[in-house]
Amino acid sequence: MDSPYDELKRRLCEIQDLEKAHELLYWDQVVMMPPSGAAVRGDVRATVARLAHEKSVDDEIGRLLEQIEPQAEAMPYDSDEASLVRVARRDWEKARKVPTELAAETAKVTADAEDAWAAARQASDFAAFKPWLDRVLELKRRYIECFAPYDDPYDPLLDDFEPGMKTAEVRVVFDRLKQELVPLIAHAANNEQDEFMRGPFAVERQHDLSLELIGRFGFEPVAYRLDTTVHPFCSSLSTQDIRLTTRYSEEELTSLFTAMHECGHGLYEHGISPALERTPLCDGASSALHESQSRLWENVVGRSRPFWRWFFPTVQRAFPDVLGDVEADAFYRAVNRVHPSFIRVDADEATYGLHIIMRFELEQELIAGTLSTADLPEAWNARVEEYLGLEVPDDGLGVLQDVHWSSGGFGYFPTYQLGNVISLQIWERAREALGDVDAQLERGEFGELHQWLRSNVYAHGRKYLPAELLERVVGGPLDPEPYLRYLKSKFGTAVAA
Amino acid sequence: MDSPYDELKRRLCEIQDLEKAHELLYWDQVVMMPPSGAAVRGDVRATVARLAHEKSVDDEIGRLLEQIEPQAEAMPYDSDEASLVRVARRDWEKARKVPTELAAETAKVTADAEDAWAAARQASDFAAFKPWLDRVLELKRRYIECFAPYDDPYDPLLDDFEPGMKTAEVRVVFDRLKQELVPLIAHAANNEQDEFMRGPFAVERQHDLSLELIGRFGFEPVAYRLDTTVHPFCSSLSTQDIRLTTRYSEEELTSLFTAMHECGHGLYEHGISPALERTPLCDGASSALHESQSRLWENVVGRSRPFWRWFFPTVQRAFPDVLGDVEADAFYRAVNRVHPSFIRVDADEATYGLHIIMRFELEQELIAGTLSTADLPEAWNARVEEYLGLEVPDDGLGVLQDVHWSSGGFGYFPTYQLGNVISLQIWERAREALGDVDAQLERGEFGELHQWLRSNVYAHGRKYLPAELLERVVGGPLDPEPYLRYLKSKFGTAVAA
Repeated sequence: MDSPYDELKRRLCEIQDLEKAHELLYWDQVVMMPPSGAAVRGDVRATVARLAHEKSVDDEIGRLLEQIEPQAEAMPYDSDEASLVRVARRDWEKARKVPTELAAETAKVTADAEDAWAAARQASDFAAFKPWLDRVLELKRRYIECFAPYDDPYDPLLDDFEPGMKTAEVRVVFDRLKQELVPLIAHAANNEQDEFMRGPFAVERQHDLSLELIGRFGFEPVAYRLDTTVHPFCSSLSTQDIRLTTRYSEEELTSLFTAMHECGHGLYEHGISPALERTPLCDGASSALHESQSRLWENVVGRSRPFWRWFFPTVQRAFPDVLGDVEADAFYRAVNRVHPSFIRVDADEATYGLHIIMRFELEQELIAGTLSTADLPEAWNARVEEYLGLEVPDDGLGVLQDVHWSSGGFGYFPTYQLGNVISLQIWERAREALGDVDAQLERGEFGELHQWLRSNVYAHGRKYLPAELLERVVGGPLDPEPYLRYLKSKFGTAVAA
Repeated sequence: MDSPYDELKRRLCEIQDLEKAHELLYWDQVVMMPPSGAAVRGDVRATVARLAHEKSVDDEIGRLLEQIEPQAEAMPYDSDEASLVRVARRDWEKARKVPTELAAETAKVTADAEDAWAAARQASDFAAFKPWLDRVLELKRRYIECFAPYDDPYDPLLDDFEPGMKTAEVRVVFDRLKQELVPLIAHAANNEQDEFMRGPFAVERQHDLSLELIGRFGFEPVAYRLDTTVHPFCSSLSTQDIRLTTRYSEEELTSLFTAMHECGHGLYEHGISPALERTPLCDGASSALHESQSRLWENVVGRSRPFWRWFFPTVQRAFPDVLGDVEADAFYRAVNRVHPSFIRVDADEATYGLHIIMRFELEQELIAGTLSTADLPEAWNARVEEYLGLEVPDDGLGVLQDVHWSSGGFGYFPTYQLGNVISLQIWERAREALGDVDAQLERGEFGELHQWLRSNVYAHGRKYLPAELLERVVGGPLDPEPYLRYLKSKFGTAVAA
C-alpha cells in the first residue's frame, strides 16, 4: 500500500501531468496548429483544464494533507517532502476558495472579452471594449471577495502571481522607482535611431545567431526547441523539454533580445532540480522571480558592454552589408537607446518601468472603484504625459494596447517590473560570488554565471515563497536600489555620451 | 437540466477530448519533442490515457445508455443520435470486459517488449526477443478469454480493428488471394531497377511536390500540416486539424507515395461530417476502411497510368538532371516494378499482400498454440520461400522486422491487406458513378472523386460497422475479385511488357 505521502504525491503528479498536457495543447495551438483547428482545440483545452481543476480541489487532498502534516512539520523546512506538503496545502486552500461557477464564468467572459478587445484595439474604439472591461472588473471583485479579509483589495490579485507579497510593499518600491526614473529618462532620452539598426537583417541569420546565444548560455539542443510565433513566450513541458518561441523581422534585430529573454525563462525551468519533476514544485517561485531571470539574461547580460565586445564581431559577420563599418561601442549604444514611446512591449530598458508603474496604479484605482472605466482613457493619457512626456494619439496606442485586462490578468503587470528590480538584486550577489563576471562575458563565457544561478535560484523550483527565496539568495527583502544604481550607471551619462 | 442523451454525449465528448490530447502528446513526441523530453512525456501520456480509460468504463455511461436506448431504438438507424448510442453501447461493453489490471499489465509489458524488440532487431537476435514474445502472447490469450465464447480465438483480436468481422471470413478472402498472387508475382517479378530511380532527388523539391499533391487531392492549407518523422503516420486532432507525416531520402522518390498514402488517411478524417466532431463517431469505420483510402489514393490513383501522364512532367521539371530524358511511361513502369523482397514496408503493390497473408497465418497459429515461438523463425522463413521465392538471410530481415507483435498489435496485420481489397471494391463503384475518372486523373482533377468518396464513405465516420458501410457503398460483402482483376490487369502483362 502507498503511504499517505505517496498517495498525495501521486495525485499531485497527476494534476501536474494534466497541466503539462494543457501546456502542450496551448504551445501547439499558437506555434504549430493549422488555423482551422481552433474550435475543437478550445474544447479539448477546456476539458483538460477542467479535469485538472476538479482534481486540484478534491476533498481527498485535504484529508491526505491532514494525515501527513504532523510528520511533515517535523521534517527540515528545506526538504523536498516538507516543501511539497507546504505548497500543496497553500494551493489546495486557494483553489478551494473560488467557487467553480465563478471560475467557469470568468473563463467564459474573459474568452469573449479577449475577442472584443482584439476588435476594439484594431478599431481604436475604447467604447466598444468598455462594457467588457466592466464585466471583467465585476468578476475580479467577486474573486477578491473569496479571499476576504485582506489588507488591500489588490492583494488577492497580486498573490496569484507573487504568493505572499503585499500591495503596500510593491507600492513603496514603485514610488521610489518613479521618483528616480522620470528625471533619469527626461535626461537620457534620445530620439535619433542609427540608420544601421533598420537592417535589412536576413531572418535565417537571426535564427542562427539566436541558436548560438541559447547554446552559449547553456542549453543543449536535446533539451529545447526554438520556434516562431506571434507573441513570444516560453513553455516548459518538463525540465528537459523547454519550448522557446521568438519572432523575426528583417527590419530590426530585436530577435536577439527576445531569444535571450525567453532563454532566461527557459534556463530557470531547465535548472529546476530533477527530484521535483512532475510535482507542483517544478515551476518558478513566482512570476517576478521568473521575469528576473529573463531580464537578467536579456538586459543585464545581453545589453551589457562586455557582452557586446564579445558578440558584436559575430553579428557583424552575419550582416556585413549593414554592420561592416559599425563600431562595437556604437552598436552597444544603439541597443541601449532610451526612447520614450507608446507601446510597452517595444519600450527600452529604462522607460519600461514607467509603463508598468502607471498600469499598476490604474489597476488599483479600477479595482477600488476610485477610477471608473469611463474615465480610464483620460487617466491613461494623463499618466503617459506625466511619466513619459508623450501625448497619446489614440486608444490603440494607449489604453487598448495590452491584452491583460481583457483576459482577467489584473495583478500581473507589476511582476514585470519587480522582475527588473529582483534581477539586479541577484546580479549584484552573482558578481560578488563570481568576481570577474565582466571578463567572462567579454570572452563569451556564461557557464559559471549559469551554474551559480542554477544552484542558488533555479534548482529550488517552487519550494520557497518569493520573499523566502529572495532572502536566501540576496539576504534581504525587495530592494529597488541595486536596480536604480544600475540604471543610473548605465543611462545617467555613459550611453548618452 | 441536460437530458440523459445530452449528458451521455457530454461524457463521450470529454473522453474523446482526452484521447485527442493524448494524440497530440504522441504526435508531438515523434515529430517535435526534444529527445530529452521522453521520460516525462511517457508519464503524461500514461496519465491522460488512464483518465480516458477510467471515464470510458464509468458505470454512469451504462446507466445513461439504459435510460436512452428505448427511445434511440425508435429513431432512424442512420441518425447521428441512434448511431452514437449504438456505438457507445458497443465501446462500453467492450471496454468493461477487460480488467483494468490486465490492461495495465499489458501496457507495461508491451512497452518493455518494444524496447527489447528494437534491440533484438538491431542485433538480429530472435532468442533475445523470444521470452518477451511469449509474455505478450500469454497476455493476448488472457485478453481473448475476456471475450469468451467466440468462434475463433483470433476473432476478439480482429474485432479490435474490424468490429464485427470474423476470422473465417478473412481466411476465405486471403486464401483466394494467395492462390492468385503467388503465380502472378512469379510471372511479373523484375529484379532490375532503373538507374534514374536512384536520384539524387533534392529533399526540398520532394517536399514541394508532396504539398502540391496534397493540395490537388483536396486539402486546404488551413486544415493540415505535413512534417517529417521516422515512421510516417497520420494524426487527426479534429476534422479540421490533420497532421500528415512523411520522410525523405535523396536516393528515392518514395516520399511522393508516402504523401499520397497519408493524405488518403487524412482526407478520410477530414471528410467526416462536422456534426460528429468530438464524438466517438468522429473516426474511420475500421482500420481496413481507413487503409482502403490510403491505398486508394497512394496506389489506385497514385500509381495509375493516367495519374503519371498528368504528374510526370511536373516531377521531371523538379529533377531535370535525373529525369530529363525519361519517358512518362518508363517512369510509370518503374514505380510499378514487381520485386519480391524481405521487408514488408518496402514491398511493392503486388507482393505486399503476401507479406500480410503469411503474418495473418502465423499469428493465428501462435495464438492457437499450434506454432511455438521457438519454431517461429523457421516457419517465417519457410513461408517467405514458399510465397515470395526468397531465402531469408537473417531474422532482422525476417521475423524481427515488424514492431506489431512486441507492441501487442496481434490482429492488426490483416487490416492492411483488407484495405487493399476494399480499396478496389470502392474504386469500381466510384468509376461507375463518375464515368470518366481516368480522363479526370489525366487532367490532374481529383475533385469529383474526392467528393464522391466523402459523401459515400468519409462523412459517415464511425456510424456503421465496416460490413454495414461496405454494403452501403458497394452493395455487398468483402470480395477479393475487384482487387484481383485490378492486379491482373496491371501486372498480368501491361507493366512487364
